[in-house]
Amino acid sequence: MPRHVDHAARRRHVAATAAELVGTHGLDALTFRNVADAAGYSTTVVTHYFVDKRDLLLSTFREVADRLGARFDEADRRGGGLRACLEALLPLDAGRRTEWRLLTCFWGVAISDPEFAAEDAGHVRSAQERIKSLLRREHPDVVEVELDVVSRRLVTIVHGLGAQCALDPEHWSSTQQRRVLANELGTLLPGGVGALT
Amino acid sequence: MPRHVDHAARRRHVAATAAELVGTHGLDALTFRNVADAAGYSTTVVTHYFVDKRDLLLSTFREVADRLGARFDEADRRGGGLRACLEALLPLDAGRRTEWRLLTCFWGVAISDPEFAAEDAGHVRSAQERIKSLLRREHPDVVEVELDVVSRRLVTIVHGLGAQCALDPEHWSSTQQRRVLANELGTLLPGGVGALT
Repeated sequence: MPRHVDHAARRRHVAATAAELVGTHGLDALTFRNVADAAGYSTTVVTHYFVDKRDLLLSTFREVADRLGARFDEADRRGGGLRACLEALLPLDAGRRTEWRLLTCFWGVAISDPEFAAEDAGHVRSAQERIKSLLRREHPDVVEVELDVVSRRLVTIVHGLGAQCALDPEHWSSTQQRRVLANELGTLLPGGVGALT
Repeated sequence: MPRHVDHAARRRHVAATAAELVGTHGLDALTFRNVADAAGYSTTVVTHYFVDKRDLLLSTFREVADRLGARFDEADRRGGGLRACLEALLPLDAGRRTEWRLLTCFWGVAISDPEFAAEDAGHVRSAQERIKSLLRREHPDVVEVELDVVSRRLVTIVHGLGAQCALDPEHWSSTQQRRVLANELGTLLPGGVGALT
């Protein structure tokens, strides 16, 4: 009886392995050979799922971007509120720092790759929408134009913290990230809706 | 009589040309041949000033980072205040967008290059110090610990806006950048010091 292979899971495992590799060692580490070795497959398996390095890099981005979105949603489902949801996106531990390092590598390539740039734009915009929906739910009286600018502020703070931590983790430790975010949220929402309007 | 050559100026012109090239077309465009052609020199001249591509890329970063710092200081000298100084850093026009695109490319490489990462960290930290000094001057009553977290917030907002605009200029237009920054500053300083403490 032929062994059943879960291709989607295997593809995802390879993408996650490649993301870890690039996030740890940088873009030059992204070769089919390295990825296959790290994932515990032959290079034939890797080439079965990915056309070329570009395809592999795009998949690492999707893997990490999806993970960030899922963490935000999970924090929301647990009723953590705005702060917990935003903290779920930040590089607060070594594993998440690797994710932001991968993102940083991806952006460097996306500058000269319109498809990559569009992919990133889609994810940032959707992160902003997630934040806006949450704000709207928590503060139903706040007008839409205000929700828009505040959600832009918050997605920008998260982006800036993640990007800065990726390159200077000592100065942007998890403590400092939490402190900056708390200070930012404190001026948004010290007593609830009032501060937003 | 031998013609006098201003080597510092020439080296800087080459670095600026290379920064423009990478910011416009991405990292792959960074070859000695392309840079020489764009700068109007022979490749021999370019190789006279730069050891290799890495040296050239580091110089493009310094060129752009120095430019940002100088613009901040210039806005400060003109008495523009915090908002004008921060706007001087943002990619509000096509030329400055190219600068942030160059920075984005540089960061992608810096992930796996500790010297590049340290160089970037130095510039971000010094931008934060510039902001902190300005805040301290404008609000002498605010305690140091508060100045620290607020300067972190502001350097993070600038970083996030610049990075997002580099890849998605449509969604992060100059109007939107100014709007986000104004909203951020509005919650810091609506009536002066009071809002900071």
